[in-house]
Amino acid sequence: MEVLNDLVGFKNRKIYQDTNMFSFSLDSVLLANYVKLDKDCKILDIGTGNAPIPLILSTKTNSKITAVEIQKEVFELALKSVKYNLLEKQIEVINGNICELYKDMSNESYDIITCNPPFFKVTNNVKLSDSSYKQIARHELFLDLEKIGMICKKLLKNNGSLYLVHRPERLSEIIITLKKYGLEIKRIKFVYPKLNEQANIVLLEAVKMGKPGMKIDYPVVTHNEDGSYTKEILKTFE
Amino acid sequence: MEVLNDLVGFKNRKIYQDTNMFSFSLDSVLLANYVKLDKDCKILDIGTGNAPIPLILSTKTNSKITAVEIQKEVFELALKSVKYNLLEKQIEVINGNICELYKDMSNESYDIITCNPPFFKVTNNVKLSDSSYKQIARHELFLDLEKIGMICKKLLKNNGSLYLVHRPERLSEIIITLKKYGLEIKRIKFVYPKLNEQANIVLLEAVKMGKPGMKIDYPVVTHNEDGSYTKEILKTFE
Repeated sequence: MEVLNDLVGFKNRKIYQDTNMFSFSLDSVLLANYVKLDKDCKILDIGTGNAPIPLILSTKTNSKITAVEIQKEVFELALKSVKYNLLEKQIEVINGNICELYKDMSNESYDIITCNPPFFKVTNNVKLSDSSYKQIARHELFLDLEKIGMICKKLLKNNGSLYLVHRPERLSEIIITLKKYGLEIKRIKFVYPKLNEQANIVLLEAVKMGKPGMKIDYPVVTHNEDGSYTKEILKTFE
Repeated sequence: MEVLNDLVGFKNRKIYQDTNMFSFSLDSVLLANYVKLDKDCKILDIGTGNAPIPLILSTKTNSKITAVEIQKEVFELALKSVKYNLLEKQIEVINGNICELYKDMSNESYDIITCNPPFFKVTNNVKLSDSSYKQIARHELFLDLEKIGMICKKLLKNNGSLYLVHRPERLSEIIITLKKYGLEIKRIKFVYPKLNEQANIVLLEAVKMGKPGMKIDYPVVTHNEDGSYTKEILKTFE
């Protein structure tokens, strides 16, 4: 069922969602808030889904944003939201496979690449044959860390930044893979679901040709004991 | 000046320090507290200094601990503390360069290796010629991440653990270097000096031949706004 929701916390934006596909998540909100925007920068959002990241970024910058989504029906939702919010001039949504598209895009053409990628490795339990919207968004069927590295290596300007949200359990692999493509992680922020629990989300900024040396930002806790959002999170939604 | 101090928080232990050399730090206390001890395990502490880590561990386990310190005068302090605490049967202190000694030690002979190594790279500002006690303890003149990897690769049993404390800015390098020597980081804990500041200490457990996949433990904050220790830290000192 298709619904038009408020993009919570970003008063002037609304977002189309389809309850049969998936809804935008806290991951995307946190990542969009983690991005440091320069005045004039070119931004690319890989695997944009229904475009929550571009929609949020557009409340903070007038810079041009390109958003790529592989799934036709999801792309159409994204496009609908962009049109509804009258952002067609700022946000260009493309339906296609970024792993193919990037080959024909200009070298070093973006200042910022954002990505909320599939988090899970493809295992025997995930069959391509029954890949649903959710499976493509969640499992590395079409996009994985190697491909993200390859894309950023080609498309990011030197000193340009990749902003990535991922699962902390894969941090070693993320660091090693990005390094292979000349991306040095400069900032990390861990997100904890509750007090005294282990982190379940990692936000990071990797800089192309950046010098070694990273900073670990002060963490975020998302939920109170009773399951409600913490003040800190509610503040990002104000 | 040589002084005999309480090993704060570990009531039955006292530790000899020399104010001209260096004092044991919060790093060592936090690392010793991060170690998960099995009933019967062989422990090696590399670059033990005046042996705070073995002295703390000895309050929690009866397992045998070997401690190696390269600097003669510092080794003598360590030995004096071990004797004062009547721990000569449990803690063996060796004066030597672990980077040489390990070659003659038995393969896969330790369950746990602990290390509070020098944190800083050797730069042009650090001259070997005026290497004081503090410089050897702080700069990678004799011990660096590569050597720690090499030592652990040889001396740790399969599934044995390296516990390391370090500076977060070097996390990429730590992960990449340890991985090269078959050490997979399984747990990380970040330590923040104050609320809303960046982490200044990282504690980690790397398992030899461990499967990929790490957990980010809930963090510690060490100081209140006024510079005093937080309740959480004072609790570890009780």
